[in-house]
Amino acid sequence: AVNAVRLMSTLDAACGWGSTPDGGMNRLSLNNDDKKVRDWFIEETAKYGCHHKVDEMGNIFAIRPGQNNSLPPIGLGSHLDTQPTGGKYDGILGVISGIEVLKVLHQHQITSYAPVAVVNWTNEEGARFPPAMLCSGVWGGAFTVPWAHARAELEGHTTLKEELQRIGYLGTTPCSYAANPLLAHFEVHIEQGPILDKAEQAAAVVKGVQSIRWYNVQVTGREAHTGTTPMESRSDALLGAAKMIVATNQIVTEGELFERGGRATIAVINSMPQSINTIAGNVRLGLDIRAPADSDVELIESLCKKRFQEVCDEHGLKMEFDNFWVSPALNFDPTMVQCVRDSCSSISCNGKELVSGAGHDSVYTSRKVPTAMIFVRCRDGVSHNPTEYSRPEDCAAGAQVLLGAYLRYDEL
Amino acid sequence: AVNAVRLMSTLDAACGWGSTPDGGMNRLSLNNDDKKVRDWFIEETAKYGCHHKVDEMGNIFAIRPGQNNSLPPIGLGSHLDTQPTGGKYDGILGVISGIEVLKVLHQHQITSYAPVAVVNWTNEEGARFPPAMLCSGVWGGAFTVPWAHARAELEGHTTLKEELQRIGYLGTTPCSYAANPLLAHFEVHIEQGPILDKAEQAAAVVKGVQSIRWYNVQVTGREAHTGTTPMESRSDALLGAAKMIVATNQIVTEGELFERGGRATIAVINSMPQSINTIAGNVRLGLDIRAPADSDVELIESLCKKRFQEVCDEHGLKMEFDNFWVSPALNFDPTMVQCVRDSCSSISCNGKELVSGAGHDSVYTSRKVPTAMIFVRCRDGVSHNPTEYSRPEDCAAGAQVLLGAYLRYDEL
Ligand SMILES: NC(=O)NCCC(=O)O
Ligand SMILES: NC(=O)NCCC(=O)O
Repeated sequence: AVNAVRLMSTLDAACGWGSTPDGGMNRLSLNNDDKKVRDWFIEETAKYGCHHKVDEMGNIFAIRPGQNNSLPPIGLGSHLDTQPTGGKYDGILGVISGIEVLKVLHQHQITSYAPVAVVNWTNEEGARFPPAMLCSGVWGGAFTVPWAHARAELEGHTTLKEELQRIGYLGTTPCSYAANPLLAHFEVHIEQGPILDKAEQAAAVVKGVQSIRWYNVQVTGREAHTGTTPMESRSDALLGAAKMIVATNQIVTEGELFERGGRATIAVINSMPQSINTIAGNVRLGLDIRAPADSDVELIESLCKKRFQEVCDEHGLKMEFDNFWVSPALNFDPTMVQCVRDSCSSISCNGKELVSGAGHDSVYTSRKVPTAMIFVRCRDGVSHNPTEYSRPEDCAAGAQVLLGAYLRYDEL
Repeated sequence: AVNAVRLMSTLDAACGWGSTPDGGMNRLSLNNDDKKVRDWFIEETAKYGCHHKVDEMGNIFAIRPGQNNSLPPIGLGSHLDTQPTGGKYDGILGVISGIEVLKVLHQHQITSYAPVAVVNWTNEEGARFPPAMLCSGVWGGAFTVPWAHARAELEGHTTLKEELQRIGYLGTTPCSYAANPLLAHFEVHIEQGPILDKAEQAAAVVKGVQSIRWYNVQVTGREAHTGTTPMESRSDALLGAAKMIVATNQIVTEGELFERGGRATIAVINSMPQSINTIAGNVRLGLDIRAPADSDVELIESLCKKRFQEVCDEHGLKMEFDNFWVSPALNFDPTMVQCVRDSCSSISCNGKELVSGAGHDSVYTSRKVPTAMIFVRCRDGVSHNPTEYSRPEDCAAGAQVLLGAYLRYDEL
């Protein structure tokens, strides 16, 4: 069994860099705090018999040998980067649950059949370098290394490769499932939604992940004086952008799309020239569309495009609508899911089975190797917020389910 | 008579720092380019017999002595700072028209009765350090020196005083109409609106300035995950802000307020934490409300407040609504206006008389000394835009009206 006290003290250690006064975390991918927690991750896992591979995207594989080292390791992975207003659990809980498995193996001097690798995937959040799950995505063949290296900060110009170099995590291992394979991938993560909290269930099997797309929308109008330009002769890019934000929300809060769980959000806006008395001439928006079904994401996209174009026509604006990320809906591997289900049952966590509303590194590993996930209940379903919280006993339940599922799969 | 060719070559010289590839200007107050044009202004005006005073707010007075130097100088003022997407005429035309008057006096060896001062007022635009007309406002007693010194950049933390010090323009002359008086203040400015262009009139008397208020609106919601947070349990600060922007526009584009020339604009937005998958928790808006009548500005303000509060109630948001600048409607001095009117008539520019939609340094000088303004036609009424343009002959008409009005007042 996992040790709940030890697990929580590992969580504390893993939150030692980048914590914020409000109890949350702000550890954007590849910043100085991310470098420090990476150094800690390598040092900590080395204590339990691991050697390490760092790949070209900075993904770190802490590998503990098994009986049959001609096999690729079974991955237990997640991420140590956070949102700018992040919590202490999103991603971090998955990595430290993997470390707890190492500790249990080590303590009981167990040599697993296959090697095991605790994996820290780079830039899962996508907050600093969109899109999300970028570096598990490279490993899973969804993106090329040069494309991912060239990704620039959302709020700046520095590239991901420059930051990997700067903090010393531009590794030499090829970032590819083919060159650096895993046998399978398990991931513990907080649910980040309200279902387990409402069902009063500590942990659960995740059967799949919903569909996600991200967009950059560029709106161009005409700068003009706020005091002298008649209301009827303006091309106000910020007014247009505001109408687009309102329209986006309407599309998924009314009718069928709401019933079917469609979600669409604009959470990033940059307006220029940012002067109180000059009408905005250029606005950039970041749009996030999700739904259980790919077809609904496509429908929301087409409705947004249509409504946005109407706003442009009304106000004499131009628009560029760029869909730069597509992550289709998926189901996890049935055998892996069964291992998680059996492990859940063994600790009576088997009421609800979930579909993830968030993307995870497991999305991209699942494209190449058998993958499954375990969700841990979090308070009020709140995440990407400093008040994000999961009880120690729920974290322990998640780690315990991971241990059981992993040992079952190793056995298989 | 003024020399139109010389006037335009002075304009070129005054645009020598901070010009942009698109034909406009980006010379935010007290930046390095503003320092250079200030140095040029002092050097240039010295050639025509001026000595200089720089006051505590960096306002520069280039003073040419008269016959009776116990009198304060007659001011011919405007500003050399620009918007980030500014043109070559807004403010600059007023300063170089004053310089042209100096050149005419010098050329004809005229010693005026009172001394004359060409004035470059600091931070008229308010683009970098809101509010607008800040340093003529200090001179006119509307703001204190310590308050104005402590004004911070809209997009940053540097204070106005720090920048005055850095570029060497923190003068020792007290910034006050009492300690450093003017006898009167004339200002040439481009209209920045479409009336003279439509009327095919080169220049005109300005009888007064409409009412203006500026606000900071802070909207607070709750950061949460875009993918997992149900649409119905969000407190999305950016969605709320978008609804406020749309409501602001509706208030002044429908019904009586539109008929009476009400204008309301949000052109500044800052959203946090700027991550595509975290619902915005904090948004700051800059709101600009104007109307010919103070009572209409008050009405628009109260309607905005009411509608914004409704948005907050609908979405569980908090709001702070801070009115940090009030510039009431005003009429210029009748004697000064008559001098401008007579001067306009002498060159047949006397169809339209205007009320300014924009604020100007003359707003604050008019609180303490007789003040009047001259507007110059600009193409399509476009301003705060790099395509801002006034024909050389219209610029010369404005300078000619200034010369005539100034000499008439000096005579009086
Ligand atoms: N788990 C998580 O918050 N991942 C970020 C990717 C997403 O936006 O869903
Ligand atoms: N003339 C001018 O653009 N001044 C800025 C003050 C205002 O916003 O009206």
